Amino acid sequence: MRFAKVAVLGVGLIGGSFALALKAARLAGHVVGIGRGAANLRLALEQGVIDSIGADAAGADLVLLAAPVAQYPALFAALAPVLKPGALVTDAGSTKRDVIGAARAALGDKLAQFVPAHPIAGAERSGAAASSAELFRGRRVVLTPLAENPAGAVQAIEEVWQACGARVTRMQAAEHDAVLAAVSHLPHLLAYALVHEVAARENSAQLFGFAAGGFRDFTRIASSHPEMWRDICVANRDRLPEEPDRYAEKLQALRPLVAAGDGAALEKLFAEARAARNRWLAGEYE
Amino acid sequence: MRFAKVAVLGVGLIGGSFALALKAARLAGHVVGIGRGAANLRLALEQGVIDSIGADAAGADLVLLAAPVAQYPALFAALAPVLKPGALVTDAGSTKRDVIGAARAALGDKLAQFVPAHPIAGAERSGAAASSAELFRGRRVVLTPLAENPAGAVQAIEEVWQACGARVTRMQAAEHDAVLAAVSHLPHLLAYALVHEVAARENSAQLFGFAAGGFRDFTRIASSHPEMWRDICVANRDRLPEEPDRYAEKLQALRPLVAAGDGAALEKLFAEARAARNRWLAGEYE
Repeated sequence: MRFAKVAVLGVGLIGGSFALALKAARLAGHVVGIGRGAANLRLALEQGVIDSIGADAAGADLVLLAAPVAQYPALFAALAPVLKPGALVTDAGSTKRDVIGAARAALGDKLAQFVPAHPIAGAERSGAAASSAELFRGRRVVLTPLAENPAGAVQAIEEVWQACGARVTRMQAAEHDAVLAAVSHLPHLLAYALVHEVAARENSAQLFGFAAGGFRDFTRIASSHPEMWRDICVANRDRLPEEPDRYAEKLQALRPLVAAGDGAALEKLFAEARAARNRWLAGEYE
Repeated sequence: MRFAKVAVLGVGLIGGSFALALKAARLAGHVVGIGRGAANLRLALEQGVIDSIGADAAGADLVLLAAPVAQYPALFAALAPVLKPGALVTDAGSTKRDVIGAARAALGDKLAQFVPAHPIAGAERSGAAASSAELFRGRRVVLTPLAENPAGAVQAIEEVWQACGARVTRMQAAEHDAVLAAVSHLPHLLAYALVHEVAARENSAQLFGFAAGGFRDFTRIASSHPEMWRDICVANRDRLPEEPDRYAEKLQALRPLVAAGDGAALEKLFAEARAARNRWLAGEYE
């Protein structure tokens, strides 16, 4: 076993799947689960996702933070005094600048043990019950290493995520937060906004009654965890508003084409969008 | 056999699935396919979706129009002189006021034989090869009958769509076009706009490289048929622009919450949207 004791702080879909994947890879000995929801932790224990329920990460050789990011300052503060020398810490936060700021504020001379990561493997399901050892298979994990990290620590955390089946890349934290704002945070905002807008109309029951597969897929991410997405939006609040602004400009440019019934221009735009999406689906940007 | 000869004008996903579903229900004898794409028609013939390739709907007892709606004026003009007395006509157009206008302009004293319909069963796949006898199973079909339709004709077309497995409801054409603008046309516009916007950025390759499952589902409908969606947008151009306008207002209202990092307000909005979507998924609006 590479890590005799692994502590998972937040045993939701991501934390639980990390535990299962490390066990499947025979990299984890004992996994202790730590979190707010007693019922969820008991379920994780019953299902063999974790081996025990703990109060802190004392004695752990590897620690994963996988809670909504607003909890990180408190989690790092609790971790700092108990973190073993030589132990490694990684995380699953969907934003990285705020997570790194929280680590810097709390970890002191143990900062170098923390290698920030973001597994891009969310789902609208949540909770330990949705965990799967295969969740990270083929998915991207972005590491945003700190200047303080020894190369060996970054390498070790890279291997941990690779053992979960992930494709690992490295990026600056600011770049990460900008890229994810465009392709993840924005679509979530847009989907929540559409459902909220439709639900607020007088004839919302009729509208939902005739909504079909296109609406279902478009809005799937509007069933995502509200607290998690609250924290992501708050953490990325200096960067995120650019995205709806840019998107609103695009809609504004589209509007006269729709109002005029400019079929040629609309078809061109639709065809270009479809072609771009199909190139993406074909793996051109992997 | 209820209909000895069925003519399908436009043997794509919808037309082909209609043919297969009627055959499975033993309601169709010979199905003749009529359309623009010779290769697609040959494929439909080889796969047993249609029984022959024809030039027009002469002699048919039941006719389905299932082409992009901009072709309807020409299709109705070609249909008028050959349509048998007593034969029934229905369609699969995603907009209804324009389709009815085209029928009124071309069908003359045969207008009463046409019962407009919209099966809400699209998919981003297209072409006869994607056809399935089960496509309409459990899906809604909206009939927007004409004042000129005898009750028996409406009843017969209702039974045809029910035989395909659909849940049939009736609605005024204007109401149909308004409802679909909100829950179908708008999401398509939004998805096309997002993909087009991302594809136009300098770092689009990087952005697509880190796009994941949420982006994939949100943009699935941006792989829809550009010509079909061009025609829908053009046909509904007097009604459709309200929708991006309304949506842009919603985004505008959301923006200060994002910029201020107003976590409580964002979480409330996200939770309300999720709850509404989950009620919909649970079948509350069926």
